[in-house]
Amino acid sequence: MSEFWKTSISEVRPNEIYVRGYALEELAARRSFGDIVHLLLTGELPAGNEGRLIEAILVTCCEHSLASPSVDAVRFVASSGVPLQTAVAAGVSSVGEAHGGAIEPCARLLKSAVERGQTARSLLEELKTQNRRMPGFGHSLHTRDPRAPLLFKLAKQWRLFGPHSKFVGDIEAATEAVFGKLLPPNVDGAIAGLMCDMNVDPALGKAFFIIGRAPGYVAHAHEQVTAERPFKAAAHDEITYTGPGRRPVPLPTDERK
Amino acid sequence: MSEFWKTSISEVRPNEIYVRGYALEELAARRSFGDIVHLLLTGELPAGNEGRLIEAILVTCCEHSLASPSVDAVRFVASSGVPLQTAVAAGVSSVGEAHGGAIEPCARLLKSAVERGQTARSLLEELKTQNRRMPGFGHSLHTRDPRAPLLFKLAKQWRLFGPHSKFVGDIEAATEAVFGKLLPPNVDGAIAGLMCDMNVDPALGKAFFIIGRAPGYVAHAHEQVTAERPFKAAAHDEITYTGPGRRPVPLPTDERK
Amino acid sequence: MSEFWKTSISEVRPNEIYVRGYALEELAARRSFGDIVHLLLTGELPAGNEGRLIEAILVTCCEHSLASPSVDAVRFVASSGVPLQTAVAAGVSSVGEAHGGAIEPCARLLKSAVERGQTARSLLEELKTQNRRMPGFGHSLHTRDPRAPLLFKLAKQWRLFGPHSKFVGDIEAATEAVFGKLLPPNVDGAIAGLMCDMNVDPALGKAFFIIGRAPGYVAHAHEQVTAERPFKAAAHDEITYTGPGRRPVPLPTDERK
Amino acid sequence: MSEFWKTSISEVRPNEIYVRGYALEELAARRSFGDIVHLLLTGELPAGNEGRLIEAILVTCCEHSLASPSVDAVRFVASSGVPLQTAVAAGVSSVGEAHGGAIEPCARLLKSAVERGQTARSLLEELKTQNRRMPGFGHSLHTRDPRAPLLFKLAKQWRLFGPHSKFVGDIEAATEAVFGKLLPPNVDGAIAGLMCDMNVDPALGKAFFIIGRAPGYVAHAHEQVTAERPFKAAAHDEITYTGPGRRPVPLPTDERK
Repeated sequence: MSEFWKTSISEVRPNEIYVRGYALEELAARRSFGDIVHLLLTGELPAGNEGRLIEAILVTCCEHSLASPSVDAVRFVASSGVPLQTAVAAGVSSVGEAHGGAIEPCARLLKSAVERGQTARSLLEELKTQNRRMPGFGHSLHTRDPRAPLLFKLAKQWRLFGPHSKFVGDIEAATEAVFGKLLPPNVDGAIAGLMCDMNVDPALGKAFFIIGRAPGYVAHAHEQVTAERPFKAAAHDEITYTGPGRRPVPLPTDERK
Repeated sequence: MSEFWKTSISEVRPNEIYVRGYALEELAARRSFGDIVHLLLTGELPAGNEGRLIEAILVTCCEHSLASPSVDAVRFVASSGVPLQTAVAAGVSSVGEAHGGAIEPCARLLKSAVERGQTARSLLEELKTQNRRMPGFGHSLHTRDPRAPLLFKLAKQWRLFGPHSKFVGDIEAATEAVFGKLLPPNVDGAIAGLMCDMNVDPALGKAFFIIGRAPGYVAHAHEQVTAERPFKAAAHDEITYTGPGRRPVPLPTDERK
Repeated sequence: MSEFWKTSISEVRPNEIYVRGYALEELAARRSFGDIVHLLLTGELPAGNEGRLIEAILVTCCEHSLASPSVDAVRFVASSGVPLQTAVAAGVSSVGEAHGGAIEPCARLLKSAVERGQTARSLLEELKTQNRRMPGFGHSLHTRDPRAPLLFKLAKQWRLFGPHSKFVGDIEAATEAVFGKLLPPNVDGAIAGLMCDMNVDPALGKAFFIIGRAPGYVAHAHEQVTAERPFKAAAHDEITYTGPGRRPVPLPTDERK
Repeated sequence: MSEFWKTSISEVRPNEIYVRGYALEELAARRSFGDIVHLLLTGELPAGNEGRLIEAILVTCCEHSLASPSVDAVRFVASSGVPLQTAVAAGVSSVGEAHGGAIEPCARLLKSAVERGQTARSLLEELKTQNRRMPGFGHSLHTRDPRAPLLFKLAKQWRLFGPHSKFVGDIEAATEAVFGKLLPPNVDGAIAGLMCDMNVDPALGKAFFIIGRAPGYVAHAHEQVTAERPFKAAAHDEITYTGPGRRPVPLPTDERK
């Protein structure tokens, strides 16, 4: 028994593939992609409408045009003459703390507050004292991110709106009093609440963004190579150089040369 | 009007997001993830069951255990202490010519043969003369890849089994006569036939693998950091060194030192 | 003896590291980085000034400002809140066929022409007939790429200017007659000639660009996070949307919903 | 003047390239790669032997055989049929907190301790109280990492052994008393001391590892494709599956199907 190659996720035998014990063909025949995402992320198939909600979450993450660092990265990389997967990987790799990265810390705060029975107001005051912002609330472009209310509406309709999602609303209600400004949840905040209510590990917060945005990255990589010329880059005469003026290169003073 | 930042994929305005003209919230409320993959890859929502078939395709791609170079890459990268997206990106980046890369060339061959009215036998004989193999057929582990017949069965059930998928069967039937060995289609060959029948550009062959495997990469990255210790690597005493024996470093003969 | 973990590159034992048979500390004490690049790429330490020339090549590749798809990719990825290595990797991954990718095909053409004793003029006419361009010659910005003559000058000074580099000059001389326009070699063409003269495998053409540009990527990733705000992206109102107009989402016609 | 495309690193004009004010050809002609790394990382050419020391540091980082997660990642990715840069990028991307990631936190601790005049013993006791380890000391394979003393020896010889490097020795001397076990510095700890003494920003700790290891990644990617067959992966019968037993797929209970 190998200790080095070990996994509980799937099993492969000649002509047989099992994912967490389920035959892959049966999964493909009977279950939606959202159900399978749930299976892979939590270890079990959903009991209710979780797969549908996961698909709705993935769809809300699928595109945000070129107004997105990761999509811009995909376009530049794709223009360099690389295979599709290389351009998509560049997009995936830039789902960082400042871009899709609010889901995880938001989920951690929601989970701990709900566990401890903390009020939204007390949580926000705690953050304010530490000079921190509440992740998952407010948006630089959308004063009211349309994706958040939609996801909560669907969750209610599908009986998946639980205490963490409710707490997201409590936080919104408390923002004005604490921060002097109403901060509605953005798509990250909504996903954070919903994933906690579906019992997905907060460490997987970025997973929804990564999986959901993957087809968007594919579309952008494809558009780049079919609609534009190779070698997309800033034009030399549009770049502002702010460094030192021109100077001669001194010869080294070390002993080597 | 910017010529530099230009896209036909989506449009973002304060509080509004449109994907190919559709409001993102409406898409998330009314359509499945498979429908949205179709929209992003082809420009239009499917008219029939294409979204369901795409989801089935994505599910067949979701996992193949550690018997997969890209998954192994995810595990090593994840063990290095990097964020989730970095490990997933390494997996995505390794969907190369030898790993998920047969879909595209298979689709190109199917498309051109069907367009030209070429028979399967003549196509295979052409390839044989050029000393090439037919991509998408045969598998190193599965003598009969269970994913291919399942996908074709679903396509028939959902009225999406068209001439390219039929041609995949013709090829299988001709393999024994031409190559002296029956080569059934593998999952790549099945996807190639189905994507041509759904009018997806063959250049997007890897897209199904990339999107479908993304949740598998997420699960492996997560398992790696939760179930194993950091720094997964070959043990020094299990590595076979096959290079030159130990030797002293000669001083350089150049003028520099 | 492991067949799975096998390498001729280096050997690690407790308190001992050997690279191609040389103790790593001895290498670090006695040899330059350029010498070690030669050792890693060819298997042997250089006999002459190759290490110096390799360093000069690496330096010519180190920077080209934001007028470079890979550097722009680094900036967008770095702005997303990712670790240094993730941003640098995005840059490395975009050294594609259209960006640093001319070295390899140029080196292959040089090698085969010199081996076969083909004249430069005949090679260019062959390419013209096939409607192909000569890789490594001409530049979209530099009418005379200053890096190429510098590298050839150093190679002459260091006795490393051989038949392939000479052939690069023959090609330049023949371009006007064949293509109707003088095309001087760019940095890629110069590196191609020099690497052939140093007996480096043409398959490693991009290696010089990758290794040489790495510190440039590091500098840009660092500048991005220290001098700019997170989330660098095209502004929504500077993006030209060219897709379909706004339209309602039709309900699916499949049986599922 | 563009606010969007702005950099102090380099300037490109037709036929002219300047790095921090220096003409690139002059740099390539007069200065070593180590000098240029110093220029890119700190903004200035070194005044003394820093370039030589940087080259020695890069060489100590260049290889550690397959006993390294990033190198293993390179091998699996390269086996998938991807271009050279994609495999190298996977290696670069896995220079994470657990693999080359000790340099930065070690440098931060050294810098703050030296600034505050803290003793090594007090620093270690502080860490012990917080249940933290001292990064850059000890090694899972090397009881005495041969790279650390070599680098310090060279630094002394080249007059670059300053207070931070000296403090590394003080820490080693204090480890036994505080942790009950002598922990010599490893290569990360040595680089941390030296980079602080050369005034390089601790945030660039991983840069030396990334740049120095790049040629090693190139060599491994090249060896993988030239010496082994494609599709390197764990064999299905060597994988230990630890998940749930085989089970039938229940039909979904949601309203959709």
